[in-house]
Amino acid sequence: MEFPSKLIENGVSAFASLPGIGKKTALRLVIHLLQEDEELSKNISESIFKLRTEIKYCQKCGNISDDEICSICNNPSRKHDIICVVENFRDILAIENTGQYRGVYHILGGLISPLDGIGPEKLNISSLIQRIQSQNIQEIIMALNPTIEGDTTLFYLSKQLSQYPVTLTTLARGVAFGGELEYVDEVTLARSIQSRRPFENYISGQNS
Amino acid sequence: MEFPSKLIENGVSAFASLPGIGKKTALRLVIHLLQEDEELSKNISESIFKLRTEIKYCQKCGNISDDEICSICNNPSRKHDIICVVENFRDILAIENTGQYRGVYHILGGLISPLDGIGPEKLNISSLIQRIQSQNIQEIIMALNPTIEGDTTLFYLSKQLSQYPVTLTTLARGVAFGGELEYVDEVTLARSIQSRRPFENYISGQNS
Repeated sequence: MEFPSKLIENGVSAFASLPGIGKKTALRLVIHLLQEDEELSKNISESIFKLRTEIKYCQKCGNISDDEICSICNNPSRKHDIICVVENFRDILAIENTGQYRGVYHILGGLISPLDGIGPEKLNISSLIQRIQSQNIQEIIMALNPTIEGDTTLFYLSKQLSQYPVTLTTLARGVAFGGELEYVDEVTLARSIQSRRPFENYISGQNS
Repeated sequence: MEFPSKLIENGVSAFASLPGIGKKTALRLVIHLLQEDEELSKNISESIFKLRTEIKYCQKCGNISDDEICSICNNPSRKHDIICVVENFRDILAIENTGQYRGVYHILGGLISPLDGIGPEKLNISSLIQRIQSQNIQEIIMALNPTIEGDTTLFYLSKQLSQYPVTLTTLARGVAFGGELEYVDEVTLARSIQSRRPFENYISGQNS
């Protein structure tokens, strides 16, 4: 598609460089911006610029933050003796949205994946060990993806952390809420039978 | 959804203010920008800013342009005695993409629509008449949407322009290429029977 204006062309390629946005959608967005107030374009432009240039990473947990220490690590009402280890920032968002967790986090920045050339030395494990050594940490929740890479990282972490006096836990694995048993995959169903729980725990578990 | 960072929140609302982009997609775009090079964000930010602040409108035809006169009006190899009247910039793009038209354009900036409070005085009709009066225009092609508003504007324009020595034409209406007759709507099919053409014209029409 040829454009009569270099500015339009640049705008379309800018939007089209984002994932999931093709040339046609990009053109629609460009036309929308042209039709709306100049303020809107200025706001969007500024937000995108600041987003990447002013963002910081929390010195404690590695979370994305506006300051040196993120709002979660800085919150005195949270339990600072429980650390939830996650792969990335999106996992923190997902867990925060449940409203069920009041501890702090630690971002690994990836999962061990030999095929992608990611070994344990590329993950933020040493800073996690430093936190365990320097603070009085009671529990480490390893909230990693239920995948091969997640499990590999889980086993590596558990070995590394076994020498410290800290409780290691993982997310419960089992059938997902709202699913139908006949469509659950074999591995998940098999594990959920092996890890079956007494019914009293099921009820009390709702409130824990 | 709560975000740990004001910058993220601003970025997400910026993207989500665009049509067809929801909060989840916006967050995906923000995360993409954070993972990519700083250059990408800077480029996108600059393109969006310049798009709205530096864009000009061609003083002749009203097309979006980088300069005072757009690249089409400035092109000496185009026929400047044929003007194609369109509603907006997108219609120019669509016609240019066919590669079949070598004349120039005139953007009306809308269609007559009493329900939306758009009367003929809000359209760029007087500048079109000025062009007809000051230049030696041979033909005006009225390429407006085949809708009630388009037809209303068509009839209004044809009345206004009837006093000038210029040929008025409209786009051919009929069954669309690639469609099946049984699914064509009644009005279109009825008109295409009324406006049936000799077969010789059909063949020669392919090359005109």
